[in-house]
Amino acid sequence: MRRLPALCLATLTTAAFIFVSPAMAASPDPVQQVEPPFWWTGMAVPDLQLMVHGRELAGLKAQLDYPGVELLGTESVENGNYLFIDLRVSPEAAPGTLQIALQDADETRAVIEYELKQRAPGSAERRGFDSADAIYLITPDRFANGKPGNDDTADTLEGTARSEPGGRHGGDIAGMHQHLDYIADMGFTQIWPNPLLENNQPGYSYHGYAITDHYRIDPRFGSNEEFRQFVAAARQKGLGVIQDVVLNHIGDRHWWLSDLPAHDWLNGNGLKKGEYVITNHSRFTPLDPYTSDIDKREFVEGWFVDSMPDMNQRNPLLANYLIQNTLWWIEYADLSGIRADTYAYSDPEFLQHWALRIQREYPNFNIVGEEWTRNPALVAHWQRGEHDPASGGRLKSMMDFPLHYALRDGLANSDSWNSGLIALYEGLANDFLYPQPDRLVIFGGNHDISRLYSQLDEDPALFKMAIAYIATMRGIPQFYYGDEVLLQSPKHRDDGVVRSDFPGGWTGDRSNAFTGRGLSKKQKAAQDYVRALFNWRRQTPAIHSGKLKHFAPRNSTYVYFRYDDSDKIMVAFNKSDKPQRLDRARYAEVINNETQATDVVTGQRHALDTLTLPPRDVLVLQLN
Amino acid sequence: MRRLPALCLATLTTAAFIFVSPAMAASPDPVQQVEPPFWWTGMAVPDLQLMVHGRELAGLKAQLDYPGVELLGTESVENGNYLFIDLRVSPEAAPGTLQIALQDADETRAVIEYELKQRAPGSAERRGFDSADAIYLITPDRFANGKPGNDDTADTLEGTARSEPGGRHGGDIAGMHQHLDYIADMGFTQIWPNPLLENNQPGYSYHGYAITDHYRIDPRFGSNEEFRQFVAAARQKGLGVIQDVVLNHIGDRHWWLSDLPAHDWLNGNGLKKGEYVITNHSRFTPLDPYTSDIDKREFVEGWFVDSMPDMNQRNPLLANYLIQNTLWWIEYADLSGIRADTYAYSDPEFLQHWALRIQREYPNFNIVGEEWTRNPALVAHWQRGEHDPASGGRLKSMMDFPLHYALRDGLANSDSWNSGLIALYEGLANDFLYPQPDRLVIFGGNHDISRLYSQLDEDPALFKMAIAYIATMRGIPQFYYGDEVLLQSPKHRDDGVVRSDFPGGWTGDRSNAFTGRGLSKKQKAAQDYVRALFNWRRQTPAIHSGKLKHFAPRNSTYVYFRYDDSDKIMVAFNKSDKPQRLDRARYAEVINNETQATDVVTGQRHALDTLTLPPRDVLVLQLN
Repeated sequence: MRRLPALCLATLTTAAFIFVSPAMAASPDPVQQVEPPFWWTGMAVPDLQLMVHGRELAGLKAQLDYPGVELLGTESVENGNYLFIDLRVSPEAAPGTLQIALQDADETRAVIEYELKQRAPGSAERRGFDSADAIYLITPDRFANGKPGNDDTADTLEGTARSEPGGRHGGDIAGMHQHLDYIADMGFTQIWPNPLLENNQPGYSYHGYAITDHYRIDPRFGSNEEFRQFVAAARQKGLGVIQDVVLNHIGDRHWWLSDLPAHDWLNGNGLKKGEYVITNHSRFTPLDPYTSDIDKREFVEGWFVDSMPDMNQRNPLLANYLIQNTLWWIEYADLSGIRADTYAYSDPEFLQHWALRIQREYPNFNIVGEEWTRNPALVAHWQRGEHDPASGGRLKSMMDFPLHYALRDGLANSDSWNSGLIALYEGLANDFLYPQPDRLVIFGGNHDISRLYSQLDEDPALFKMAIAYIATMRGIPQFYYGDEVLLQSPKHRDDGVVRSDFPGGWTGDRSNAFTGRGLSKKQKAAQDYVRALFNWRRQTPAIHSGKLKHFAPRNSTYVYFRYDDSDKIMVAFNKSDKPQRLDRARYAEVINNETQATDVVTGQRHALDTLTLPPRDVLVLQLN
Repeated sequence: MRRLPALCLATLTTAAFIFVSPAMAASPDPVQQVEPPFWWTGMAVPDLQLMVHGRELAGLKAQLDYPGVELLGTESVENGNYLFIDLRVSPEAAPGTLQIALQDADETRAVIEYELKQRAPGSAERRGFDSADAIYLITPDRFANGKPGNDDTADTLEGTARSEPGGRHGGDIAGMHQHLDYIADMGFTQIWPNPLLENNQPGYSYHGYAITDHYRIDPRFGSNEEFRQFVAAARQKGLGVIQDVVLNHIGDRHWWLSDLPAHDWLNGNGLKKGEYVITNHSRFTPLDPYTSDIDKREFVEGWFVDSMPDMNQRNPLLANYLIQNTLWWIEYADLSGIRADTYAYSDPEFLQHWALRIQREYPNFNIVGEEWTRNPALVAHWQRGEHDPASGGRLKSMMDFPLHYALRDGLANSDSWNSGLIALYEGLANDFLYPQPDRLVIFGGNHDISRLYSQLDEDPALFKMAIAYIATMRGIPQFYYGDEVLLQSPKHRDDGVVRSDFPGGWTGDRSNAFTGRGLSKKQKAAQDYVRALFNWRRQTPAIHSGKLKHFAPRNSTYVYFRYDDSDKIMVAFNKSDKPQRLDRARYAEVINNETQATDVVTGQRHALDTLTLPPRDVLVLQLN
């Protein structure tokens, strides 16, 4: 286990303060870790379970005397070094510090001073991200190195090696913090960083998905407090922050792992090599009417890779640990959303409980789940929460992978009766499968997929079309950092290159996308287009929540409208090499008395009667 | 219009007998055609509407005196040469001949002798095809020329030209009749011929989908009576017959067209060139939440091709005409099912009425609709009858195009994490979308798609796997004539070649698949395999209605089971070039005490503990 030096305890913002009774001096440090490190009064669900780790804690009794806080009991587990303490914090309990005495017969072995904080006003009612938002996804190690001093830290294993595609490059929270203005100026309203929690793995740790401490920001990214300040500063600029939560697996250097509470905290019988299997990735098993039990089990219980042990959320203590951990970060850091990694790979009943609990504490919050599939029926399954429809534990949002592929293929593939724009048009019809298609998160790129510009054959015209689509289609747009300056990667998956450094994020960078210095003309044009379109989108309710109507593609042109009572937006794509005249009569069910159309980016005016799309271009037009 | 010589009337089995009153001798032949040509007593719905065509019939009154038959009225339409007579045939009405007098003021201009027949016993309760069946699809012009004398007939435009891929080759009902034993011996239980109704087009008429007379078998195929006898003979051999019904369009030489009842019988304002559009094939419009009205309309109202006028089933007289026509053939020819061509291209409300009425008259009957798409959600839409779920007008069966593509791709594409067998396995999970997946019609080939053997790269091993899959998977298998002897065609669509002549169907053919003479070893092996498997299937209820459980593919092997209380069938595919040992433990949730497995085709026995799949092979095994 990770042992914290005693003198560290008081300085960590996330650690409960523990002191040892003088009577127990013969056996020092009986309690080394309490999680969650603190909690709040006034949560919707009064129950709170503390995980206490130390030495030989099994069977200890707890004592507590605090108005409004009831001790429900303690639970010992397979490993005697853990004790779980169940509390009930009534709505009447005042903020303050609990003194929880751990006793062996009549002797007090340790006292935990546990803080109950006051919640921030309006915390429970916080609004999650929705279709009025636009999300900027950042791989923090690769965005900007705001604080070179934390590139290597004493208590982490892997240092910085910027020349290695799979190494740590030094990007951090300070880097994101310093460039909040850039992000806001580009028109985005939410930031989703890949996971920031400690990944103290010996190597390949920059991506963040191998968490080794659930209550600690990785020191190479910053501190818990820096993260909290970053979120607060972002809010000041109209930007929410979405946390990337990993419920399925942990890094194999997680601090529990050298002293596991119980072998069944992990799937595959703990850490015994040969007793776990690698997941079969059979993501269809949750809805496949013919699935075998073994496939269903191996999907959920199989490990991702050897270095990422798979958590068994059927263990109720672990389930509760993960649920409380999510709530803790929402409350502590003031988050505006959660992105749930590899959503379907966890126990489905647990997922239901997790989502329901968050929904109960934050009814207006939002979670977007990742289900990486081209099949909209499968994505819809998770949005419906079909495994238990009665419970209402659905996720409001899912990543719209099916539309992602439809968009890339629709633009990159040549147009025929069944490919290109037609496939994009037909793919959208699948929206009838979703309970709420406008809550899907739509995207052109992310950290796991080749760069958008590369997928589109490095064709600026197709790139422009993709941006116009993402910015105007139903749903919540999400954008991957650097796509706006046409970052490239091979067409096959090459994560290290996909997650390349943002130009200008490091001192001495040749070009600087924050200032524009050294960017090519193409890059500048792309960035300007993204900026113009997303800033316009921010102020255009017809895009956020207006109706959508589209018209079957013809002659490599595709037209749709977003409209509400006050606005009509026409989005018209022309993939052909020729100008295409649009016949106004065909759109008569949307266009009424309007005669003019104004390009929302250039301000150019067009007469609707003679509207002609330039070759290989897209127009976003406000009718008037 | 098509005028029948008066002396023909008595000889046609399908024509009502009409005679002209002597008082009207000055204006001969006022009535030339009555449809339906006769009807039955005791139908569930008592209403019957006669379409009477002749000369200046508008405004005539009808008179009738027959116990149990009520004259509800007459309707005139745009074209004065038509009169529609509404009758109500009460359950008490006895079979016999009605005399319907058509009167102008007090003068009788014609008398229609209209026959009400007695229904065959059990007609209403007839059982439609289901998953206990296996369907053999035949393109009648290309199967066997049983009666060369009808290759060219006096009253049809196109003669025979066997050397032309798109010409008529002379196959006929007599040819199918003569080879009923072959079809039954192959293990099939249903025959679906492409449409047999008159297609009196000037050219390219062999396929049957350009109907020119809804009440007449094309004379080059035979007569109505020959068809009836063919169905009766098939029944004697345990074979049902499914009629291919075309609700969407007609041939442009249809007899109505030179004297159309009303311009709105056709979409696009009758036959005026330039006033109809070609369908946009936007088959997603019925469920697309964002569809435009114009796309929806152009999908349903657009014509297939210039030579096939598109019917407007929103005209209630035409709708009724089509509904009665379907019922007439079921009752007259003793059908066991309907295959509905281009199902979604007709007015959705009409489709609902049509299906409901058939269901009402024949509650145990079955209809399979064609919706040519890879998207299971769209096929499921039609099985659910979602456009009016309350009405119960769903089709029981749909063609399973999504599984067809999954099977071909799954076998022909090489295996990877997301293609080959994995894609086939994952595709099946979409069954959760269907109300009744076991009622889908599954197939390897049909008349519109390249030959199965060619799609599978002319690989006999893959062909064998496809046959095993079709014969054991859930659903109703359908097989295209000639696939059993490995007929080939280009990979791109080439209808004339796909629908090649069945070897042995013509005198002088070099090889004869009916007798086996001249077939290659590969052809014989394929035919034997099909015969063995489909005959075994016929007697194996676990395949008809047993449960299905499958296991995620590994190492290019894929295993599923079909099982009920009495039988367990294991189907195991090995696409790899190596023998693959199957670990019995993995299938423990299905295999209990069984120790042996018997190959249902070869009879070979295998010990389950050491079961090894040969390279590139499939085994269908009975466990015991």
